[in-house]
Amino acid sequence: MELANFGATALGGVNRQALSNEEIDARKQLFTWAEELNLKPLRDDAGNLFFRKEGINPDLDPVMTGSHIDSQPTGGKFDGAYGVLAGFEAIQALTEAGIKTKRTIEIAVWMNEEGSRFAPGMMGSEAFSDIRPLEKILEVKDKAGVSVEESLKTVLAATPSAESVEVRRPVFAFIEAHIEQGPILERSRKTIGVVTGIQGVRRMRVEVKGEEAHAGTTPRAARKDALWEASRMVSALHEKLYVDDDVRFTIGMITLQPNVPSVIASRALFSIDIRHPDSVLLERLALDVDNICKDQVIACDVKTWRIAEAESIHFPSKIVTLIENVSNTLGISNTRIFSGAGHDARQLHFVCPTGMIFVPCERGISHNEAENANPKDLAEGARVLSETLVDLAGR
Amino acid sequence: MELANFGATALGGVNRQALSNEEIDARKQLFTWAEELNLKPLRDDAGNLFFRKEGINPDLDPVMTGSHIDSQPTGGKFDGAYGVLAGFEAIQALTEAGIKTKRTIEIAVWMNEEGSRFAPGMMGSEAFSDIRPLEKILEVKDKAGVSVEESLKTVLAATPSAESVEVRRPVFAFIEAHIEQGPILERSRKTIGVVTGIQGVRRMRVEVKGEEAHAGTTPRAARKDALWEASRMVSALHEKLYVDDDVRFTIGMITLQPNVPSVIASRALFSIDIRHPDSVLLERLALDVDNICKDQVIACDVKTWRIAEAESIHFPSKIVTLIENVSNTLGISNTRIFSGAGHDARQLHFVCPTGMIFVPCERGISHNEAENANPKDLAEGARVLSETLVDLAGR
Repeated sequence: MELANFGATALGGVNRQALSNEEIDARKQLFTWAEELNLKPLRDDAGNLFFRKEGINPDLDPVMTGSHIDSQPTGGKFDGAYGVLAGFEAIQALTEAGIKTKRTIEIAVWMNEEGSRFAPGMMGSEAFSDIRPLEKILEVKDKAGVSVEESLKTVLAATPSAESVEVRRPVFAFIEAHIEQGPILERSRKTIGVVTGIQGVRRMRVEVKGEEAHAGTTPRAARKDALWEASRMVSALHEKLYVDDDVRFTIGMITLQPNVPSVIASRALFSIDIRHPDSVLLERLALDVDNICKDQVIACDVKTWRIAEAESIHFPSKIVTLIENVSNTLGISNTRIFSGAGHDARQLHFVCPTGMIFVPCERGISHNEAENANPKDLAEGARVLSETLVDLAGR
Repeated sequence: MELANFGATALGGVNRQALSNEEIDARKQLFTWAEELNLKPLRDDAGNLFFRKEGINPDLDPVMTGSHIDSQPTGGKFDGAYGVLAGFEAIQALTEAGIKTKRTIEIAVWMNEEGSRFAPGMMGSEAFSDIRPLEKILEVKDKAGVSVEESLKTVLAATPSAESVEVRRPVFAFIEAHIEQGPILERSRKTIGVVTGIQGVRRMRVEVKGEEAHAGTTPRAARKDALWEASRMVSALHEKLYVDDDVRFTIGMITLQPNVPSVIASRALFSIDIRHPDSVLLERLALDVDNICKDQVIACDVKTWRIAEAESIHFPSKIVTLIENVSNTLGISNTRIFSGAGHDARQLHFVCPTGMIFVPCERGISHNEAENANPKDLAEGARVLSETLVDLAGR
């Protein structure tokens, strides 16, 4: 995992946020490896990269694999990067074995999956799959006020050798390898998770507006304390939204104004992330958020809104079965699994037959600098990926 | 309030944090006014400024007035600045009336009262009153890593004409004028608040440590969610600490790590500010904080600690009576009042007979850009201050 040197953190993780200098360095490393494997570098106006191994019949739609190389600010070495590197491993393996495929195979590096610098994420795969207009993506700004458009110029200038391609292109099939980011494979002692689908998500924001006032003089009855009331909402949401064990509910971000100890907060803004395999139940939970928050109001005003939503999706059975058969043929233990996390594969699912291959990660820990995975599992995942790609691309 | 131009905000308030460029500009304006009134500028190594009107007998300990000109990031025009400007008004009045006093009168401008940039505040008055060692103050850093010591060098270079004096000097008496920052004077329709004392405060921090994990994959039972548990603590503290109507309890600051929507927070740090006129009850409330927080723990670790504490103080009756008599003689309505907010006068109380003069502020709003006060009330406060200073300094 040499790629983890780019944006490496003291605690063994990576901070390689989308379109940052660290990510640019990582992109350059991929160009070097692509040259060694004789792959042709391509890029589109959404900042996606592709490394192409041309097939016998280059007019056929390509088979794609890949993932992303951006990370959370305190992310791990494997989330995303594994899917890109497994693509390189897979192509290296079939090159060394002298296998030629009918269809072209491309490794995709999707721009900004994580969405920690430019929110929301999944930008590259959403542009590719025509889910979000490119112009909307380009105008998004980070906390420093820098837009995606500006950042992309720097990125493209740093990697000028890539040939430009259309943002939307036909694809025959897409297979993404990824660490599980959960504990199921490790606990069940299986090497391969044959992913059957991705659970839906609702992303929301809650804004609580109060009034700034002096901490030492304002009586309780006169307070409009945005943090106090936001905390009541956070507590109540946690109590009421966990209707079953499949609910994944997270408030990971809160910002306060003015956020100083001796001033009552005038504004609190917090994030909501709800996921559930059952799209109907998920929508009901999202609809409950507004009422639960309003029930906790004392003197402030509260406003809730959605910033992103996605239904649960189910990958086509022919892809699921193919990955399962490949694993069995190679004698690698496997189990079907439903993805808790969102992935670029969600977007590709809407434009071509798509599937995912999971490998275990230590203690299920991800989005954490301590993220880890077993080299043998990673290698076996790449083997399953390689055989699956060859099957799809045709010998 | 020409001073409010320095650090003026779009919403009519000021952002003039301690030792900032905006505060330096405001200091320079004070030097200009001092020159017009023929006052001698002095400064000490703690960054305090003094403008001296020499008395008939300069060997006698001086009478001091003044306050601070630093503000909260979204502060008002009057908090602090009024006390300094009332000092200038008072001296101008007695100069114009041709009054000479036996004792020297000095206007003090105490460094960093608010503590929003360099925490905790009250730095200048604490150094002057020998409550905090100067070397401890100088090493405090702001969020950008800049120390008080470095910032002071810039400040001193910008105002080189001030003569250097000792940080600790004998003072005969100190009178601070200030807006009330609460609603009592306005509601009781009195112009002058004769301040009898300042309520005590406990300032604490609570740190909740959890574990970063993926929002979409981590089951509830495996979560160590620092924000969720911190919110339970915030709610519980609000429920349990309001034991009577005199309690002032505020959590005004919270910071989260990594503070991104799709990652479970690994750390939450929040502030606690508790005040009460009864020092015994106040201490009991502060002692309760740790247990209340620990009772709310589910899977995280929690740690609480104190960063500052002050007991309730009571100003000497001879100063209280003097301000009351002066107000009555001038025919200005007045009432005794206990200060909810902390002030530089607290520190001066430990080194000389000290008192405070409050004037009303609109709707009791302070630490807010909407802070406002009536020009007539402000002028009458300055008149009471002027007469009080003359009485203490002797004709």
